[in-house]
Amino acid sequence: MCELLGMSANVPTDICFSFSGLIKRGGETGPHKDGWGITFYEGKGCRTFKDPHPSYMSQIARFVQEYPIKSCAVISHIRQANKGSIALENTHPFTRELWGQSWTFAHNGQLKGYKKLATGHHRPIGQTDSEHAFCWLLHQLSCRYQRRPVHWKSVFDFVTVCAAYLQTKGVFNMLLTNGKYVYAYCSTHLHWITRTAPFGRAKLLDDDVEVDFQYEASATDIVSIIATQPLTFNEKWTKVQSGQAILFHLGHKII
Amino acid sequence: MCELLGMSANVPTDICFSFSGLIKRGGETGPHKDGWGITFYEGKGCRTFKDPHPSYMSQIARFVQEYPIKSCAVISHIRQANKGSIALENTHPFTRELWGQSWTFAHNGQLKGYKKLATGHHRPIGQTDSEHAFCWLLHQLSCRYQRRPVHWKSVFDFVTVCAAYLQTKGVFNMLLTNGKYVYAYCSTHLHWITRTAPFGRAKLLDDDVEVDFQYEASATDIVSIIATQPLTFNEKWTKVQSGQAILFHLGHKII
Repeated sequence: MCELLGMSANVPTDICFSFSGLIKRGGETGPHKDGWGITFYEGKGCRTFKDPHPSYMSQIARFVQEYPIKSCAVISHIRQANKGSIALENTHPFTRELWGQSWTFAHNGQLKGYKKLATGHHRPIGQTDSEHAFCWLLHQLSCRYQRRPVHWKSVFDFVTVCAAYLQTKGVFNMLLTNGKYVYAYCSTHLHWITRTAPFGRAKLLDDDVEVDFQYEASATDIVSIIATQPLTFNEKWTKVQSGQAILFHLGHKII
Repeated sequence: MCELLGMSANVPTDICFSFSGLIKRGGETGPHKDGWGITFYEGKGCRTFKDPHPSYMSQIARFVQEYPIKSCAVISHIRQANKGSIALENTHPFTRELWGQSWTFAHNGQLKGYKKLATGHHRPIGQTDSEHAFCWLLHQLSCRYQRRPVHWKSVFDFVTVCAAYLQTKGVFNMLLTNGKYVYAYCSTHLHWITRTAPFGRAKLLDDDVEVDFQYEASATDIVSIIATQPLTFNEKWTKVQSGQAILFHLGHKII
């Protein structure tokens, strides 16, 4: 299994605090030592840092942890390999273009019978069930909406139909974003929290780090975090139910 | 205009020396201050570091310069913007999937009338003539070869036909790779060099750095570098003629 981390915010925000907690689980406080990745959106563009090595000892992860890239939409993943070797092409997140937008996806779980899923002209590069499922999802979306859609809630409702179908093939927790919307589907484990004023203190479960967001954030900031397991122990995280989807836009939970 | 840098090698090799020279031109010894990027292939996977800020003062560029990622195929680019704002989505190189492979592209030049070029289902995300031309090229390739081709020299011959057509619309120097082959097309400025045993010293034009490859490389290493302008002054670079293409495979020049 793997762990997922996502962020949606109304102002460009760095994810250093949450990422610091996650990367500890990549081989130190958790077993997810088979690679890690993080994708930051900035405007219509995005950039990904990834490494097939354990995050807790990755120099690139340490750089990302210390270099505050500010973004309104972030997806991150630490991997414990099942399908597909430990290699860069099998390291999440995966990004592909659809409707002239960059779409980024990460998956926690394991699927059976996924190789029969048609992917159209979105062909997998690596060998994971995850990338195959992402290509299938993009193919479903591109068949359903041949041009860029306008009603995004309907689009994500359709994503939920697709995700529920994938869940029939195994465990399928996933994060998906086009840089504006951050979507998550829960099959087994997923939690979220929204931080708004008045901000308080948060202390990581996996590291001896505490942040007082009162001094880090502005009064109008709205920052939502999605994670496989809660990252802090003195805040109230909400568990997502199996089969449930959640959708964020600029930090606000809209589904 | 921009500057291009490419590498093809028969063993995973770091590009730190050449990259150190290039990034100086990104705002210090050269005017290409509108972003930079570099893509490394490792197996079937690749990873890109990019920044819309000047490379000579970029913390990410400094990290990449000091962290020796070893690869057999690399493409890098420093940008002086013409079409498209200074933004991440307009920062080269661009990577897209075709035939289940990652294809990476960077362009130096300027095109007119490019918006009329049909791109099929490869839609541009940013506003550059470069990304539009890349999408058109992928569309041409996917129409010509509906399945992954086998005879790669023929594929790159077809790329040259496409590149020559793009050259009729302006200046079109480009680098293209699928991680195995590194291809370059020259419209105005492009140079290359192959380093093999017996290795000697090389001294950067843009920085006070000298490397003695005798101590850095093994006797069987073959490393080819392609650059808009020579990066060293005590080695013999070959100028590519306008309208000429060059193709490398594992360091060997095969066209």
